[in-house]
Amino acid sequence: MESEPTRVMVAVNESTLKGYPHASISSKKAFEWTLKRIVRSNTSGFKLLLLHVQVQDEDGFDDMDSIYASPDDIRQMRERNKAKGLHLLEFFVNKCHDIGVGCEAWIRKGDPTEVICHEVRRVRPDFLVVGSRGLGPFQKVFVGTVSEFCVKHAECPVITIKRSAEESPQDPADD
Amino acid sequence: MESEPTRVMVAVNESTLKGYPHASISSKKAFEWTLKRIVRSNTSGFKLLLLHVQVQDEDGFDDMDSIYASPDDIRQMRERNKAKGLHLLEFFVNKCHDIGVGCEAWIRKGDPTEVICHEVRRVRPDFLVVGSRGLGPFQKVFVGTVSEFCVKHAECPVITIKRSAEESPQDPADD
Repeated sequence: MESEPTRVMVAVNESTLKGYPHASISSKKAFEWTLKRIVRSNTSGFKLLLLHVQVQDEDGFDDMDSIYASPDDIRQMRERNKAKGLHLLEFFVNKCHDIGVGCEAWIRKGDPTEVICHEVRRVRPDFLVVGSRGLGPFQKVFVGTVSEFCVKHAECPVITIKRSAEESPQDPADD
Repeated sequence: MESEPTRVMVAVNESTLKGYPHASISSKKAFEWTLKRIVRSNTSGFKLLLLHVQVQDEDGFDDMDSIYASPDDIRQMRERNKAKGLHLLEFFVNKCHDIGVGCEAWIRKGDPTEVICHEVRRVRPDFLVVGSRGLGPFQKVFVGTVSEFCVKHAECPVITIKRSAEESPQDPADD
């Protein structure tokens, strides 16, 4: 008899190129790596905890050009954002379902670095998988890296999965 | 049918408290974590690559008080060092054998950080597991950390496993 499944948190986000509900290249890579190299055929031995952090603009609005004239507009926008996040998670949840590995998926709003570390403290996964664009030091200055922050600050082991060179778009800051 | 096993490199070293052939607290912890949380019951799905890096004193001698008077003394010392390293690896290899997971184990001499990264390039594991003493910033200045170097420079995903507080000796630099 096996003990409790190993709980693997995977942080996923949307593509900067294709937008919602498409997953970023790096988070798709991290997710697929986890299934292929860690879970393998042992689907009952693992449970994936899929966390998607929605980044909000400072004013709380996603679409700069939209006009929010009434409480109804605001509510509709909130619902649209929620739907987008759910669509993104659907991609990952469906894949887990297809191969038969248990999962939980949820959405939080805020700064990805802080939220991921906060959720690690809250749900206590066995380890955390984060994708990385594999940026050089020059590019990092401008875009920051969530993965490096998590490696330093998350209160659980963290494994960073880089995109391969051939998966990287022309502008490596894109994902 | 499953694909090739996932190849996990685990870097192991001797205890600074108990000396050879005892494994350090942190590398024993990293090894056991890998078996319990990753390999689990799927022993045919993984292969452990156990690397032990022997650190040499600058003059090449381990025992400061010994007198090496002849080429024979030197040869005997070399053989003793080799035997020590083999004893350390024996502990890990026996555990792998007991639970039925495939492994390879080998010894290299030199600076652990450089040698581990070199061996990663050479054998191309799917990921690397390193133990960490979990030192604070003040202690790190004096003892350095192999794990942080590997996270930055090893050409494969790296997962760092920290000792728990109750496993740490009075002087956290000990292991």
